[in-house]
Amino acid sequence: MASSPKPFILYTAPTPNGHPISVFLEELKAVYPGIEYDVQKIDISKNVQKEPWFLKLNPNGRIPVLVDRSRDNFPVFETSAILLYLAHNYDKEMKFWFPLEDAKNHSEMLQWLFFAHGGVGPMQGQANHFNRFAPEDIPYAKKRYIDETKRLYGVLEMRLKDRDWLAGPGRGKYTVADVKAIPWVRIHAFAGIESLDEWPNVKDWVERAEARPAFKAGLEVGKA
Amino acid sequence: MASSPKPFILYTAPTPNGHPISVFLEELKAVYPGIEYDVQKIDISKNVQKEPWFLKLNPNGRIPVLVDRSRDNFPVFETSAILLYLAHNYDKEMKFWFPLEDAKNHSEMLQWLFFAHGGVGPMQGQANHFNRFAPEDIPYAKKRYIDETKRLYGVLEMRLKDRDWLAGPGRGKYTVADVKAIPWVRIHAFAGIESLDEWPNVKDWVERAEARPAFKAGLEVGKA
Repeated sequence: MASSPKPFILYTAPTPNGHPISVFLEELKAVYPGIEYDVQKIDISKNVQKEPWFLKLNPNGRIPVLVDRSRDNFPVFETSAILLYLAHNYDKEMKFWFPLEDAKNHSEMLQWLFFAHGGVGPMQGQANHFNRFAPEDIPYAKKRYIDETKRLYGVLEMRLKDRDWLAGPGRGKYTVADVKAIPWVRIHAFAGIESLDEWPNVKDWVERAEARPAFKAGLEVGKA
Repeated sequence: MASSPKPFILYTAPTPNGHPISVFLEELKAVYPGIEYDVQKIDISKNVQKEPWFLKLNPNGRIPVLVDRSRDNFPVFETSAILLYLAHNYDKEMKFWFPLEDAKNHSEMLQWLFFAHGGVGPMQGQANHFNRFAPEDIPYAKKRYIDETKRLYGVLEMRLKDRDWLAGPGRGKYTVADVKAIPWVRIHAFAGIESLDEWPNVKDWVERAEARPAFKAGLEVGKA
């Protein structure tokens, strides 16, 4: 008898956009025995994510995409939308999020999730581009995006004063907001920011996440 | 006898980040009589949003911020987080969003909200910068961000084929995803994209929103 297929397929690549989903699936798997997923690696260096079959899953042509086999193969794109989809539907004990009824904590979690999604990700991504990939050397653009990324790290530094995690009461709770932000911040050196010494709270926060077995396991997913 | 203060204060400026909130408050006001708000205009040309009193409301130093007087002056930042805060807590009839239990429609709404928040906004914002504000003329960067903005409009164009709005069954329902995205797309000319003729579905979608009285009223908020 064939065993039933795993409930999820993750289309991904080992990048700071892909890592939050593999990390979060590993976190969920460690808590909930039913969470299992297949991984389909997408070779973004060959633009596989721009092929017609992939655009049917995500018209924006970017990884990651999660397909939920248990809900008629429903496809979900945008890293943060996938995190919330998994939280809402599969983290029933609310280990990694706050319910809507807990209005303030839920909103603080979303505020930092959107801060990471619209700030850290896109700006650090531009720093990567101009420092690593652009065919021209453009000092103005290099400096612009390094400076903006550093400014955003400074905002995180203030937030993490006396806190372990971005959202939640007291020292905070590890939520999807941290899972979204940390995979970007941890690869600061790739964007040209050599160390996190200037932001000690941010540095501790990244190390705190990287010490989690599920976080570590998630970073291994999709590797060559 | 003093009348009780309005439940919200909106700190804003008439920009594509500020407009979604004034638009959405006007939409809610048209449905729910209790929704009223004071407006405090922030002069971003004078960097008022970087002053210490403002950083206490939003450590990222950006407009808009919504303060909810009815919940101990709770401050909410990040445009999309404010939209969801208002939807979750004050749109009880769910006129402009889908509940979590409606898992697919809720997620599709979030997917397009995050697409707008992490894609259209930041990329069109960079097009604005290099075409309008940068002290150097950098053709590579101008082209990069105009091209990326156009690509994102193309993704919206595909999505809006046979649809009126980004999320929801059939032709869709007007939700926070549209409220977030349209204030950016409507000012395409400012970024250097002269017309929307190349994307007729997108053009109709923008006009459909701009025909709404509440949308129009929201665009007037914070004007000089």
